[in-house]
Amino acid sequence: MLAQLPPALQNLHLPLRLKLWDGHELDLGPAPSVTIVVKDPRLVSEFTHPSLGLLGSAFVEGRLEMEGSISEVVRVCDELSQALVEDDGEYHASTQHDKATDAASISYHYDLSNDFYQLWLDKEMVYSCAYFKTGEESLEQAQQDKFHHLCRKLRLKPGEYLLDVGCGWGGLARFAAREYGVKVFGITLSREQLALANERVKAEGLQDKVDLHWLDYRDLPQDGRFDKVVSVGMFEHVGSANLELYAQRLFGAVREGGLVMNHGITARHIDGRPVGRGAGEFIGRYVFPNGELPHVSRISAEISEAGLEVVDVESLRLHYAKTLDHWSARLEANLDRAAAMVPEQALRIWRLYLAGCSYAFARGWINLHQILAVKPCADGSHELPWTREDIYR
Amino acid sequence: MLAQLPPALQNLHLPLRLKLWDGHELDLGPAPSVTIVVKDPRLVSEFTHPSLGLLGSAFVEGRLEMEGSISEVVRVCDELSQALVEDDGEYHASTQHDKATDAASISYHYDLSNDFYQLWLDKEMVYSCAYFKTGEESLEQAQQDKFHHLCRKLRLKPGEYLLDVGCGWGGLARFAAREYGVKVFGITLSREQLALANERVKAEGLQDKVDLHWLDYRDLPQDGRFDKVVSVGMFEHVGSANLELYAQRLFGAVREGGLVMNHGITARHIDGRPVGRGAGEFIGRYVFPNGELPHVSRISAEISEAGLEVVDVESLRLHYAKTLDHWSARLEANLDRAAAMVPEQALRIWRLYLAGCSYAFARGWINLHQILAVKPCADGSHELPWTREDIYR
Repeated sequence: MLAQLPPALQNLHLPLRLKLWDGHELDLGPAPSVTIVVKDPRLVSEFTHPSLGLLGSAFVEGRLEMEGSISEVVRVCDELSQALVEDDGEYHASTQHDKATDAASISYHYDLSNDFYQLWLDKEMVYSCAYFKTGEESLEQAQQDKFHHLCRKLRLKPGEYLLDVGCGWGGLARFAAREYGVKVFGITLSREQLALANERVKAEGLQDKVDLHWLDYRDLPQDGRFDKVVSVGMFEHVGSANLELYAQRLFGAVREGGLVMNHGITARHIDGRPVGRGAGEFIGRYVFPNGELPHVSRISAEISEAGLEVVDVESLRLHYAKTLDHWSARLEANLDRAAAMVPEQALRIWRLYLAGCSYAFARGWINLHQILAVKPCADGSHELPWTREDIYR
Repeated sequence: MLAQLPPALQNLHLPLRLKLWDGHELDLGPAPSVTIVVKDPRLVSEFTHPSLGLLGSAFVEGRLEMEGSISEVVRVCDELSQALVEDDGEYHASTQHDKATDAASISYHYDLSNDFYQLWLDKEMVYSCAYFKTGEESLEQAQQDKFHHLCRKLRLKPGEYLLDVGCGWGGLARFAAREYGVKVFGITLSREQLALANERVKAEGLQDKVDLHWLDYRDLPQDGRFDKVVSVGMFEHVGSANLELYAQRLFGAVREGGLVMNHGITARHIDGRPVGRGAGEFIGRYVFPNGELPHVSRISAEISEAGLEVVDVESLRLHYAKTLDHWSARLEANLDRAAAMVPEQALRIWRLYLAGCSYAFARGWINLHQILAVKPCADGSHELPWTREDIYR
């Protein structure tokens, strides 16, 4: 049966053991750290082009099993893919973004199970890149530091009105209300998130300050009522075709002189195409349906075109790799409990997605950019301090 | 004769007095702060569309005189232009960028007269946006603080090799060598700058550390010999068609793990076109031939496409307005001396350009962005600290 394997595969040197459905084994190098168990014979013919998308799909569908630490599985699979797949470019799927589809896409991911997310997120359930001051902080600390970093960049002052676009489980909204004395209007398209977020607002007695709604960004008030706008890990769902509209909605929501922070994942592009050896295909199919990652220059251009001025951009790429390492390690340490909370296929997807995205951030296929923009007054003035030094005081 | 003036003009309310060639006067509002003396009768028909480009040209050509403080002249002319010119968009001139043309364009501006530039620049002759920590600093102080800001962002360490692309009169190169202990390779296409820069290097005894050359950026070494690259106020001359090549040259010059700082002027675009009521036309014709200002997203995209990763972007728009206010005030206070150094037409051009660009930065037509990028190692790693806090220590 081993003779059926493509010759290119047999010439590789990787710490990988292949176990076939008939019991045959092939080690591609000494001391394999990862074993791929091929359960479906038809996979052999597909192994000539084992993109990360293909390998991930086969794992999710149970056509193969992966043994070894999940991060090592990802690393070795990428080396395998790198060696055998010629085209490094991502297929760029077109995505659909009417309100109903967006609501369904959000629900698919975020309504999976609050218990499941609680299992591996920090206590505040912050589901976005943390901010590590030294890299040694706990996830809990790094998420609190991220909140401070965002609030400081936004120069939040007591009494201001903050819009939180994609508020998740309300961690940032409650934090900003509690620590910076602002009023918050938050929106999400996840019913599960909204329910738990509202519970937590009530538990903290913050009902007068934090007001959360199930609302599409396209339906945001456009009367400039907000002093500041923050959007964390949300714009990845907007889609390329709607980025212009998204930027316009942020612009319309904030007052003159106000600030907008867009914190989100961007993709590295080469020749106009995202990179990642098919990993993006996997994410689009199983993790974030209709998700789409533009290059940082694209969202910067849209924000500017809408009338906002980009004043401060910071990459937190390696922070997200570390955040995902924390999440992945917590999930891996609780696989039994997780299996009781979500279907087996979902667990396979989330295991691979968390470890895979950490790898993608570490390699630079994707990035995290915090983009701070101001809506200048008619005469071009704004209230920002001369330097960014106050953020670090 | 006043009847010849377009009716639209006569209905305006501006603190502007028009004096015609025949002695007639028309005040467009009470207590005029600015007087435009129309010396050429043919201008009257052109006043129906007095773009800033047209007004500036007529002033340079001596067809009209402007009386009043130069900053007030610019402000009132813009209000006049705003009221009468419908199209706010800039005509986007195509510019030419072979080596010979670029050398000639640079020579036109920077070889004008070292004495003239010394008259209104700071002692180190830093001809780019200063960095004001509070807005109250002297120009001298703010330029030193800018040098520190650049060197800190570049995380310069003793013994490192710094490439300075467009080194001007060598102020930053000498500063970095003296204060941060680096070796510097600097390039310029201005013979006048190079001569004075070399004098100053010698006077400070920095010949072993600072090595300056007349060299085109296209001819930079591409063997990754530099630890860090800084380009200050240079990329404005590259031209849209060559931005890709420019970014590739920066990429090729710096080692893996090294940093690149691009500090330069960007333009606000609306519907893909720069804004500015014709001011850009004036700049292109009289001040910076073949200069071209892309949007910040465009240079970010090119830098990324070349293989660099954008990690930190900061707008210093209002810093440049203030820098130009300092320059303009110094020049206005020394007009007699300046007149002995450069032709009358050049003085008219530089007076208008300094005051006009201050206005353009203040209004947000143009911007100044410091873009810090890293050349990641093959595995995606780099040496940057986790946060930007060290810049502000």
